[in-house]
Amino acid sequence: MKTYLDCIPCLLRQIVEASSFFTRDEHLRIRIMKEVLSSLSQQDLSQSPPHITGSVYRLLRNRFSMDDPYRAIKDRFNRLTLSMLGPLRETVLNSQDPLLQAVKLAIAGNSIDCGAKTGLDEHEIRVEIESSSAKPLEGDVSLFRRAVEQARKILYIADNAGELTLDRLLIEQIGPDRVTVAVRGAPVINDATMEDARQTGLHELVRIIDNGTDAPGTIIEECSNEFRQTLAGSDLIIAKGQGNYETLCDEELNIIFLLKVKCPIIADHTGFPVGSHAVIQGPVR
Amino acid sequence: MKTYLDCIPCLLRQIVEASSFFTRDEHLRIRIMKEVLSSLSQQDLSQSPPHITGSVYRLLRNRFSMDDPYRAIKDRFNRLTLSMLGPLRETVLNSQDPLLQAVKLAIAGNSIDCGAKTGLDEHEIRVEIESSSAKPLEGDVSLFRRAVEQARKILYIADNAGELTLDRLLIEQIGPDRVTVAVRGAPVINDATMEDARQTGLHELVRIIDNGTDAPGTIIEECSNEFRQTLAGSDLIIAKGQGNYETLCDEELNIIFLLKVKCPIIADHTGFPVGSHAVIQGPVR
Repeated sequence: MKTYLDCIPCLLRQIVEASSFFTRDEHLRIRIMKEVLSSLSQQDLSQSPPHITGSVYRLLRNRFSMDDPYRAIKDRFNRLTLSMLGPLRETVLNSQDPLLQAVKLAIAGNSIDCGAKTGLDEHEIRVEIESSSAKPLEGDVSLFRRAVEQARKILYIADNAGELTLDRLLIEQIGPDRVTVAVRGAPVINDATMEDARQTGLHELVRIIDNGTDAPGTIIEECSNEFRQTLAGSDLIIAKGQGNYETLCDEELNIIFLLKVKCPIIADHTGFPVGSHAVIQGPVR
Repeated sequence: MKTYLDCIPCLLRQIVEASSFFTRDEHLRIRIMKEVLSSLSQQDLSQSPPHITGSVYRLLRNRFSMDDPYRAIKDRFNRLTLSMLGPLRETVLNSQDPLLQAVKLAIAGNSIDCGAKTGLDEHEIRVEIESSSAKPLEGDVSLFRRAVEQARKILYIADNAGELTLDRLLIEQIGPDRVTVAVRGAPVINDATMEDARQTGLHELVRIIDNGTDAPGTIIEECSNEFRQTLAGSDLIIAKGQGNYETLCDEELNIIFLLKVKCPIIADHTGFPVGSHAVIQGPVR
């Protein structure tokens, strides 16, 4: 998926927040903003939003040593969701349809996205997760159910820190033996990295790999050999969130996206309104 | 007031809308966006937001002949408010406190601001205006009342098209003989120009001047001699909206701002929450 013009102000809003987490030096923040504006003025917008965002974060890392501005936020959301894990697991296990319940929770966890919203707070995330059972899903869940039943090897491409705890509940239902989870290869926004897999204990349940890149999505041609081999060896891909959707929706894969629709661009592209919790089979064009 | 980092994504959001009114050619819109990004990367952010926005619109006019993208919107909001003028005048005249009622309507009219919000629609503006009597005002209205009673010559610096019709009701209460209204010297966003003063019939009631500039605010040192002489010869300035606030809040003038607070930056600066309808005496520092 290309980058739309509306993505530019949204990305910059998010850079304003990231720079505030990095420094209180206003002059430095202005320099950071100007470098980003200048870089964006030269980008190829036929590339996907995670492509552009990844390159902006690379610039910030190289030029300003802004390595992981969302680290404290990621820790906080990991702790929040871990504190909810026990009761949520009970809800899944006591549900009439544990797989459906786990899908709903995994999608609700996709609200933990600092790229889509400035000033995300714990209360709204807690409410979103706790109210997810009652929220209808857009798309065809039976399709997800069938695909999971038939698959022998599943690559589960995670999205954000904190969200991983909810992914864990879904993977427990799918059966962890045939699942590999992929996280990002470097910090970008609040996307999950290997550190978050460890913090949420996911590494004790399944094999975790990183994708070898710093994009907040999955740009296959830039991913590590390990990631690409795992992708090629999987007969089902489950991909979480908008960033993975934006980078993988065109790909010829047996892929199902689980995501919360968080902006008008993705609403247009998927056909589901902003705020929807959606199950979408790829490719989407 | 300086330009804050949060103003940058907001300005770009607004440029995305402006370019969509100007052309459907996606390649041209991308070129426009890239020129704006490049220009912003070189701006001095110690200048006020209208300074920056004015220079961006100048660039768009010079480089792309994007002369007045909001013309159709301005016509539409002029027609909308004119269609409400008769009943609103009745409301003012039948009110126990006609001046207060007119102040409330003039501030409600300041909602007609395409700079602050993408996709502004007629329904929300109608609701905002019709519900304004019940909305409390922030700040000290008695101060406005006293200042108006004492003033001999008043310069009323208008903000947006459409809003002018509501300004007209307030000027009728103040007494038009001692009032001069200033509009912008060139089209910028949906700010009122001489054309809008004519469309709303304001030119039949009071003397209208333009400020000689293309900024969506009042940068005194860039304004025409006529404007500056009128300013110097006035013993009270009434200034509408955020753009005039941003450019005049530091100035040593006998000035009162009437505005709707539309963003967190102005909320911080004024001390009134987003959404407030406010009466503020300058200078504010």
